[in-house]
Amino acid sequence: MTRETVGTHEVSSQPAGGRSARTRAAILDAARIHFGTLGYERATIRAIAAQAEIDPAMVMRFYGNKAGLFAAAAAIDLNLPDLTAIPRTRMGHALASHFLQRWEGALADEALVFLLRSAVTDEIAAARMRTIFAAQVARPISIALGRDSDAGWRAALIGSHLLGVALCRYILRLEPMASAEAESVAADLAPVIQRYLTGPVRGGVS
Amino acid sequence: MTRETVGTHEVSSQPAGGRSARTRAAILDAARIHFGTLGYERATIRAIAAQAEIDPAMVMRFYGNKAGLFAAAAAIDLNLPDLTAIPRTRMGHALASHFLQRWEGALADEALVFLLRSAVTDEIAAARMRTIFAAQVARPISIALGRDSDAGWRAALIGSHLLGVALCRYILRLEPMASAEAESVAADLAPVIQRYLTGPVRGGVS
Repeated sequence: MTRETVGTHEVSSQPAGGRSARTRAAILDAARIHFGTLGYERATIRAIAAQAEIDPAMVMRFYGNKAGLFAAAAAIDLNLPDLTAIPRTRMGHALASHFLQRWEGALADEALVFLLRSAVTDEIAAARMRTIFAAQVARPISIALGRDSDAGWRAALIGSHLLGVALCRYILRLEPMASAEAESVAADLAPVIQRYLTGPVRGGVS
Repeated sequence: MTRETVGTHEVSSQPAGGRSARTRAAILDAARIHFGTLGYERATIRAIAAQAEIDPAMVMRFYGNKAGLFAAAAAIDLNLPDLTAIPRTRMGHALASHFLQRWEGALADEALVFLLRSAVTDEIAAARMRTIFAAQVARPISIALGRDSDAGWRAALIGSHLLGVALCRYILRLEPMASAEAESVAADLAPVIQRYLTGPVRGGVS
């Protein structure tokens, strides 16, 4: 990699994960703040670049345009554990614990709050969220449950509950959900997630 | 009531529930659309009045200022049934059914979607939502459960699940939750709401 000047930052040849990675991370952090608070339409590359203290031309070089930058900012990996490696009766607890870890524990980042907040007002973000849900929640649950024709509906019930907890706890800050101990939240969610995974359900369609 | 000219509308003396009530309803409908899509800061009395085809001065006369108009638009009655009149083991089903009725059935209006959408981005709307939750969900549940010291936490679990269903079904339009039959949704939520009301919970705090 050649030496290059990036706004007030200098990016020089470095081992993998060096300044270029940090520059991208700074841009994505700024993008999540701007898209998350202003919405897609009102956020601008110029303002995002200014917040990241990067030349706007560098943002364009990395991400092409605003749509590309948004896609990168919203490229979220939920990092679900491999459900097929977990005993069927423990899946509810595994999903509930992972959910809390991913939103606020060791696996947390700003991207989830950004995406949820954006998705409520922007159709582009909502579409992104539907894609993430289908690929990273519904699909692995369906695979783990094998030939269960209700798997999609089970995933919908689980997703609606967990997103509701995220909404109340991290965004609306509805008490006592906002301040409850993470471990206690997971403990009370686990049996319900388990019920939705392996208990009786009506199926969602008539 | 005296005869008065209101923008392009004429408001004349009428029996109760006449044009004045319809004028107010038109203003509140327009206010919910503008606050809901633009957020509190960007919505203007002028634009709301224009959409309602009312003179802005009339909006001010009815609601005082933007804060007063917002409060009126967000003055939501969840119309919960009297839980103390429902057998304890039927409360889960009653709450789940009422929830669907209130959001999309005979009791539905635009105000709930407006408030939920606003609350995600506006702190004023989020505060309004916390007040509504405390007064209209947590309090009646607490009264119905009597001397249950976990009542507040039970209400939080229920609220998080129901708001999550609303989020996925009416706002994010996450499938299959968005298109599932209302009756099937209520049928699958009921036992979980019941569990949160009267089953074992850890309590939310350590």
